[in-house]
Amino acid sequence: MITSTDVLAAAARIAPHAHATPVLRSRTLDTLAGCELHFKAEHLQRAGAFKFRGACNAVWSLDEDAAARGVVTHSSGNHGAALALAARTRRMPCHVVVPEGAVAAKLASIAAYGATLHRCAPTISAREAMCEQVRIATGAQLVHPYTDPRVIAGQGTAALELLCTAGPLDAIVVPVGGGGLAAGTAVALASRNPDATVWLAEPAGAAETAESLRRGERVTEFTPDTACDGLRGTLGAPNFDLLQHHHADALVVDDADTVRAMRLVWRHLKQLVEPSSAIALAAVLAEPGRFAGQRIGIVLTGGNVDLETLPALLALGD
Amino acid sequence: MITSTDVLAAAARIAPHAHATPVLRSRTLDTLAGCELHFKAEHLQRAGAFKFRGACNAVWSLDEDAAARGVVTHSSGNHGAALALAARTRRMPCHVVVPEGAVAAKLASIAAYGATLHRCAPTISAREAMCEQVRIATGAQLVHPYTDPRVIAGQGTAALELLCTAGPLDAIVVPVGGGGLAAGTAVALASRNPDATVWLAEPAGAAETAESLRRGERVTEFTPDTACDGLRGTLGAPNFDLLQHHHADALVVDDADTVRAMRLVWRHLKQLVEPSSAIALAAVLAEPGRFAGQRIGIVLTGGNVDLETLPALLALGD
Repeated sequence: MITSTDVLAAAARIAPHAHATPVLRSRTLDTLAGCELHFKAEHLQRAGAFKFRGACNAVWSLDEDAAARGVVTHSSGNHGAALALAARTRRMPCHVVVPEGAVAAKLASIAAYGATLHRCAPTISAREAMCEQVRIATGAQLVHPYTDPRVIAGQGTAALELLCTAGPLDAIVVPVGGGGLAAGTAVALASRNPDATVWLAEPAGAAETAESLRRGERVTEFTPDTACDGLRGTLGAPNFDLLQHHHADALVVDDADTVRAMRLVWRHLKQLVEPSSAIALAAVLAEPGRFAGQRIGIVLTGGNVDLETLPALLALGD
Repeated sequence: MITSTDVLAAAARIAPHAHATPVLRSRTLDTLAGCELHFKAEHLQRAGAFKFRGACNAVWSLDEDAAARGVVTHSSGNHGAALALAARTRRMPCHVVVPEGAVAAKLASIAAYGATLHRCAPTISAREAMCEQVRIATGAQLVHPYTDPRVIAGQGTAALELLCTAGPLDAIVVPVGGGGLAAGTAVALASRNPDATVWLAEPAGAAETAESLRRGERVTEFTPDTACDGLRGTLGAPNFDLLQHHHADALVVDDADTVRAMRLVWRHLKQLVEPSSAIALAAVLAEPGRFAGQRIGIVLTGGNVDLETLPALLALGD
């Protein structure tokens, strides 16, 4: 189980490569929420999401031999792009397995960061098989998007920086999908603000983390149905253990509330964040009593909004 | 005619009240443009636009007696909101004349800043008559959105800050409507970087500034037809004189190019700017030869995007 020492080591390791993103404030949003909101702007991180932190920590944790052989992952989303860019900071090979039918623009940006793309059928088993094949053929090390301990420790550095800029907080609210950011944040917060709580904002259409924490065992059988495309993954096993250990708690949010919160962030912070980011603000706004008067950290995780489907997305909040 | 001394005095006057906004960079946009772009993020200014600078300078230039009587303007857009907020920083009255039929959300934000709204018929003459009536009844001083010399000097402070952060520039590109920002920028740049050029990005559907500079006399007869709703105003007389004096030059941009540039700013800077802001980047991208290898400042003027009409707006760039 990773500890705050791993997060501190990650912070030192990625400092030369990652952005120390700003913390944004808005008097209007503070008034609306009835508490003090400190937004950690990870949509301004390199490659457009906090994912660069974990990927960068994984890449720079490798010894020279392993680095020469490179890394491999199966993610056509933010982790794929983040790992490709992180590998480029160390001038080492990166292989990304992508399913047929993935969005062309996303693949183009992964390729632009210098990764080699490997196409496979759009099933989990085909992706894993292709990953294994690449790993054996090249000697590249697998970097899982959220269960890898180096990735979890890297994601925790966002909370460290947030506490450094904002000072002590009563709580940090983060979106939860696979749980990489969630677990890393829980570890970082426990070491600095042991009385503070990590709240996990989770879409109602993929609320297996809330259910897992309630039952005390990890739920893996569910069919995600949510506009938060970054939060459809299944909570990882080490992530569940860390979240349970640190007494993290979940808040379930409807997509309509998330889209309304996204519009508020656009309007008042002028920041183009995606629904998977805005869900954390939605969770706070939905429970004004719980957070009243507190100092709350919110991680804005990414800003990869698809402008083609934007009209339909905005309509969800009407 | 205002000089750099007026801009420096304005900078000192507004410093306690205005944000020193950040200067943003993007490697991807630099590569696309073939030059070094320094974006002054005035959409993050108080009230969401650079307009707060000029309004704030006007408000804090008044003597005590005049301040007690307050200010008046006729603008239901960014200047109205900016003047209302600026007046609130000095706890003085502010009157805003608004035409029947103005967007309710805009009026609500002006009222939320504490201004008194005065409704009138939606014609220029009705607005001017109502303004005059309020001025006589209250003793409030008129603050014109772009011809007032205090406003022009205040808008110039954005360029001063940009030069301070970015260092010497080869050119600054600003959008031009009435010419408050344009004239203030020309004055500020001339005093710091006398060899640099101010380029005015102007929509093809309201290009009377380009025509005025070409003819050497101010053109006022035209019917604006552009999606850049902040740039439909007519170039002011003192603004024209200052732009001519400082050898500013205009670049005319089609709305489709402006919307494409807006999408680039959204995608790569993750900043929600309006078309009237993005036109400056569009102007640079349209003429790669002119700016190749140079250090270019761009003022992102505002971020008041109407999400209701967004789908139609985005379609203009297809």
